[in-house]
Amino acid sequence: MSESGIRVSELAVEAGLEWRGASDPLIRGVGTITAAGPDQLTFLANKTYRRHLATTRAGLVILGEDAAVDCPVPCIVAPDPYVTYARLAARFAGGGAVAPGVHPSAVVEAGAEVDPAAAIGPLAVVEAGTRIGAGTVIGPGACVGPDVVIGRDCRIEARVTLCAGVRIGDRVIIHPGAVIGADGFGLAFAEAGWIKVPQLGGVRIGDDCEIGANTTVDRGALEDTVLEEDVRLDNQIQIAHNVRIGAHTAMAGCSAVAGSASIGRHCLIGGGAGIIGHIEIADRVTITAMTLVTHSIREPGEYSSGTPLQSNRDWRRNAVRLRQLDDLAKTVARLKKER
Amino acid sequence: MSESGIRVSELAVEAGLEWRGASDPLIRGVGTITAAGPDQLTFLANKTYRRHLATTRAGLVILGEDAAVDCPVPCIVAPDPYVTYARLAARFAGGGAVAPGVHPSAVVEAGAEVDPAAAIGPLAVVEAGTRIGAGTVIGPGACVGPDVVIGRDCRIEARVTLCAGVRIGDRVIIHPGAVIGADGFGLAFAEAGWIKVPQLGGVRIGDDCEIGANTTVDRGALEDTVLEEDVRLDNQIQIAHNVRIGAHTAMAGCSAVAGSASIGRHCLIGGGAGIIGHIEIADRVTITAMTLVTHSIREPGEYSSGTPLQSNRDWRRNAVRLRQLDDLAKTVARLKKER
Amino acid sequence: MSESGIRVSELAVEAGLEWRGASDPLIRGVGTITAAGPDQLTFLANKTYRRHLATTRAGLVILGEDAAVDCPVPCIVAPDPYVTYARLAARFAGGGAVAPGVHPSAVVEAGAEVDPAAAIGPLAVVEAGTRIGAGTVIGPGACVGPDVVIGRDCRIEARVTLCAGVRIGDRVIIHPGAVIGADGFGLAFAEAGWIKVPQLGGVRIGDDCEIGANTTVDRGALEDTVLEEDVRLDNQIQIAHNVRIGAHTAMAGCSAVAGSASIGRHCLIGGGAGIIGHIEIADRVTITAMTLVTHSIREPGEYSSGTPLQSNRDWRRNAVRLRQLDDLAKTVARLKKER
Repeated sequence: MSESGIRVSELAVEAGLEWRGASDPLIRGVGTITAAGPDQLTFLANKTYRRHLATTRAGLVILGEDAAVDCPVPCIVAPDPYVTYARLAARFAGGGAVAPGVHPSAVVEAGAEVDPAAAIGPLAVVEAGTRIGAGTVIGPGACVGPDVVIGRDCRIEARVTLCAGVRIGDRVIIHPGAVIGADGFGLAFAEAGWIKVPQLGGVRIGDDCEIGANTTVDRGALEDTVLEEDVRLDNQIQIAHNVRIGAHTAMAGCSAVAGSASIGRHCLIGGGAGIIGHIEIADRVTITAMTLVTHSIREPGEYSSGTPLQSNRDWRRNAVRLRQLDDLAKTVARLKKER
Repeated sequence: MSESGIRVSELAVEAGLEWRGASDPLIRGVGTITAAGPDQLTFLANKTYRRHLATTRAGLVILGEDAAVDCPVPCIVAPDPYVTYARLAARFAGGGAVAPGVHPSAVVEAGAEVDPAAAIGPLAVVEAGTRIGAGTVIGPGACVGPDVVIGRDCRIEARVTLCAGVRIGDRVIIHPGAVIGADGFGLAFAEAGWIKVPQLGGVRIGDDCEIGANTTVDRGALEDTVLEEDVRLDNQIQIAHNVRIGAHTAMAGCSAVAGSASIGRHCLIGGGAGIIGHIEIADRVTITAMTLVTHSIREPGEYSSGTPLQSNRDWRRNAVRLRQLDDLAKTVARLKKER
Repeated sequence: MSESGIRVSELAVEAGLEWRGASDPLIRGVGTITAAGPDQLTFLANKTYRRHLATTRAGLVILGEDAAVDCPVPCIVAPDPYVTYARLAARFAGGGAVAPGVHPSAVVEAGAEVDPAAAIGPLAVVEAGTRIGAGTVIGPGACVGPDVVIGRDCRIEARVTLCAGVRIGDRVIIHPGAVIGADGFGLAFAEAGWIKVPQLGGVRIGDDCEIGANTTVDRGALEDTVLEEDVRLDNQIQIAHNVRIGAHTAMAGCSAVAGSASIGRHCLIGGGAGIIGHIEIADRVTITAMTLVTHSIREPGEYSSGTPLQSNRDWRRNAVRLRQLDDLAKTVARLKKER
C-alpha cells in the first residue's frame, strides 16, 4: 500500500471529509510539518506549529477549518485533525500482518488451545490450559502462563509475561517486558517476620486496552484486579492488587496505583503520579505529573501537589522556611490579633 | 486438598486456635467477607469491613475476640486475624508442587549443578558454574548467569535475570522480570567523556526475601549489595550498588535507594519514596509515600516530605507563594520587630 | 591476568603516572580501602575515607598528591584518582572475552547478518534484516527485532528487547530487561474512545552509551528518539517518544522524560526526577533527585523542587499551612500596608 501510494482524494473519502487543493498527489507515507515531502501527509493540531504551514512541502496536510485558507498544499479539513491523522496514518505503519502459526522454536504445552489464525513467535512459551484467539500475535520470548485467556486480534509483544489465569479481552496491545498477574504485595507481620498472604485473585484486562513496556499489573488478593475497556497505560506503570481502573482512563509513564484503589472513567493520570491504596477517584479527574493523591477525589477536575521548580539556591532558601511554616503562620496570626 | 475440603475444626487445630459455631462445614477456598460462600473462609481484620459481618455467608470467618460475638457463622478467634488468615489461606493457593526436572527446551550449560529435586522451566537458561538447590523452581524464560548460587525451595519466576555470581538464600521468591546483579551505575568523568567504573562486587539475597516484578538490584562496585533475611520488595523498585537493607524491612512499589545507602531492620518504605546515596536509616523507620530522604535518620519514627493534594487552582495560587516564601518570612520578621 | 598479577610499577606505566613505595608488589585484584589486602589495589577519591589511609593493608592506593605523603603502602599519584582507578580496575573485571558464534539454541532468522566475530547467546532471537557488528555480544534470551542495526563491540545483555528498526552505535552497553523502541504513548481521543496514533519513528543510540536494567526508550511518533554519544542511563528510566538527549548527559535511576523534551549535553539528572514534555533543557544543567521540571531551562546551573524531609508530625503541621499559604501571604501584605 505504501509502495504504490494512495491519492489525497481517496484518503478524504476514507475519512469522510472534504479535501482542497490544486492537485491530487499520491501519498506514500507520513512526516512532520517541517520534514514531510510531496508524497507524505502531515497534520496541524498544535498552534505552536502553525508558523510552519506556509513553508511545508507535504503532499497533504490534515488541519482545521481556520488554518485551511493559509495552506499552500493540498489539505483535508477535519473537526479534530489529530484524530483524523491517527486514523489515516495507521495504513502507513510498517509491519503489517503476521503469518499465523506456531514458530517451531516456541513451546506450546499440551492442553493449550491456539487458534489456527493466531501466531506464536520464536521461543515463546504457552502453558497448559491457555486459550489464544484468532488474529492474536504472541511475540518472541513471551511467556504465557497456564489457564490464561487471550481474545482476538491482540498483540502480545516480545518478552511479555502473562501469569496464571490472566484474562485479556480483544484487540489488546501489551508492549515488551510488561508483567501481568504477578503476585500482589500482601504481607502480614507475625513475631518471627513477614508471612506471605496468598494472592488468589486474578487480572482482567478489557477490550482495546494498551499496556506499556515494563509496566506491571498485579493479580488480586481475593478478587480480581480490573482494567475496564480502552484503558491506556504507558511504560513502567505499577498497578497493585485489587485496583480497578475505569474505561478510557489514560495513565502516563511511571505512575503508580496502590492496592484496592479505584479510579474512575475518562481520567488522565500524569507521569510519575502516585495514588495511595483504598481510595476512590471520580470520573473525569486529571492528576498532574508527580502528584501524590492521598485521599479520595469525589469531584471531576484537575488536582496537583508538589512545589514549583527553582534554582537550587532559591529552592534552599525557601525550603528552610517550609520547615518553619507553622511557626510563621502562628506569628502572623498573633500580629493580626495584636494589630 | 481444595477439592475435598477441610473442616473448620481441623483448620482451628492447624492454627492452634479456638473455633466457635453451630456447625463444622467443609472449607474448599477463600473469599472476601461479602462474596465468600458456605464452603469458603474469610477474615475480618479491618474495622471498615465490620459492618459486613452480620450478612456474611462465609463458611468460616477468622476474626478477633471482640467481633466473635456478632459472627453469624462459624469463626476462628485469633489474636491477629490477618496473620492466621495468611497461614491458613496458603493451603488453598493454586499451582502446588511443580514436578522436578529440567524441561527439554531449557539450556543448562555443562558445569551447572542442578539438584535433582529442582525444576528448570521451558526455555530457561542456566549457565556454567551455577548451583541450584532442592525444591527450587526456575520459571520459563528465566536467565541464570554463571556462578550463581540459589538455595533450597526458591521460586525464581518467569523471565527473571540473575547475573553472574549472584547469591540467593533459601525460600526466596523473585517475581517475573526482576533483574538481580546488573552493573551498578559507576562512572568517572574524564576530559573525553564518561569512563565506566568496573562493578566487581556481587549481590547477596538473604533467606525468605521476596522481590517484586521488574524490580532491579544492582551488583556492588567493590563489595556486595546486600538484602538481609526476610526483606520484602514490591514491584519496580530500584536498589543501587552497595546498598544494604536490614532484615524484615518492606518497601512498596516504585521506591528507590541510591548507592551505598544503608537501611535498618524493620523499616517500612512507602511507594515511590527515594533514598539518596551514602546515608544511613535507623531500625524501625517508616517513610511515607513519595518522600525523598536526603539525610541520615538516626531515630525510629515516621518521616515525610512533599505537599498536600489540592485542586490545581488552589495549588497554583499557593505554589506562587512558595517561590516567595523566604521573602514572606523576612517580611513577617520585620513586622514582628517593628511591632 | 588477575591470576598471575601485575606489578605496581607496570600499572603506573600503563596509567602514565608516577608511583611511590618501598616495594613493588604484584596486584591481582581490587578492594575497598578498608578491606583490600596486599595483592589488591584501592583508591582514595572521597575525603570521608581519608581517615582509613593510615591503616590500609592494600598493595596499592591510587590517590591525589596531597594524600600521598601519608600513604603507608605503595601508591600511584593521580590528578583524578577515580578516573585512574576506573581505567586500571577494568583489567581485573571478570568475564573477559566471549567466544564468537551463534549458540545452537538461538533463533537467527534468514536475512539477518551476524558478523562472524559477534556472539549470540542461548535462546536469543535475531529477526530478519538485522545487522550485528564484530565483537558485539547478544546475551541469553535477548530479542532483537527485524531491521535493527547494532555496531561493533556492544554488550546487549540478557533479556534485552530491541524493537524493529532500532539503531545502536559502537561500544554500547544495554543491561538486562531494557526495552528500546517500543511504541510511544500516542493517543487521540474521539467520541468512542482512544485512537492509537501510529508510532512510525525509530530510536537512535549513539556510540558509547550505556542503558540500565529495565529502562525503556520509546520509538518516535514521526521522527526518531535520539540519544547522542556517551549518554549514560541508570536503571528503570523512561524516555518517551521523540526525546533527544545530548552527549555525555547522565541520568540516575527512575528518572523520566516525557515526549519531545530535549535535554542538553553534559547534564546530570537526579534519581526519580521528571521532565515534562515539549520543553528544552540547556547544556550543563543539574537536576536534583525527585525534582519535577515543568518548564524549559535556558541557563546552566542546579535546579530543584520538593520539600525537605521532616518527622511526619512536623510535616503534618506545616503541610496544613501549605494549603493556606496564599491566604497567609495576603494577610502579611495587609499587615504590612496597615503598618
